[in-house]
Amino acid sequence: VTLGRIDHTAIAVSDLDAAVARYAALLPDAAIERTAVADQQVEVAFLRLGDTALELVKPTSPDSSVARFIARRGEGLHHIAFEVDDIREALLRLGDMGFELIDREPRAGAHGLVAFLHPRSTGILVELVQHAVTY
Amino acid sequence: VTLGRIDHTAIAVSDLDAAVARYAALLPDAAIERTAVADQQVEVAFLRLGDTALELVKPTSPDSSVARFIARRGEGLHHIAFEVDDIREALLRLGDMGFELIDREPRAGAHGLVAFLHPRSTGILVELVQHAVTY
Repeated sequence: VTLGRIDHTAIAVSDLDAAVARYAALLPDAAIERTAVADQQVEVAFLRLGDTALELVKPTSPDSSVARFIARRGEGLHHIAFEVDDIREALLRLGDMGFELIDREPRAGAHGLVAFLHPRSTGILVELVQHAVTY
Repeated sequence: VTLGRIDHTAIAVSDLDAAVARYAALLPDAAIERTAVADQQVEVAFLRLGDTALELVKPTSPDSSVARFIARRGEGLHHIAFEVDDIREALLRLGDMGFELIDREPRAGAHGLVAFLHPRSTGILVELVQHAVTY
């Protein structure tokens, strides 16, 4: 399993329009893409920078785990996502190594299949991403 | 001012050896470099992945701002650093745009000159890095 690229670093925000405006001012060269991820009850904006990206994540429901994060800790850095070639193999291998999995099976993300590792074993919330298409 | 590359995403940790072991297991392909930054009273490890890196940051004094962060919020995601070509020009320009600067003048970082923007205006702690050498 190679977790060889930081796919994105995610920031939880309560106002996506304001956050996009602020980061677009800070990072005028970033390409911006907005989308919704129904499964996680969030709207997101990606700001692409080189071979990685910032993801701004806004909850669309108080039941979203991102809404609970903001209620508990405020807006701020939320998780780091690493790209993997084969997410099912990565989950099996990391589980065998003792990393605690939030998702034993991948689910639908913004750009393909995703799964999360629990911060109890990694120190931070870690996402794995297997892209559906290469770009 | 081009903030065109995420230089690193930083994670505050209290045990650097344990954190390096954990992330080396998670990211076996990352090149690891350890160093100390006296000015910020921290020891750090960089795990390079593609054109960006993870930085693990351990305070070496209770007076370090990273020690205060851990005391207040626990270990976790701490800041994002963007590379700039000319850090003095970047600070002038971002100050004029209304971003609140922690450092009006750059100071010595692990790899060159650094300066921080206040989370009050950016939502997260942002570092600017002007590398002393290109690699």
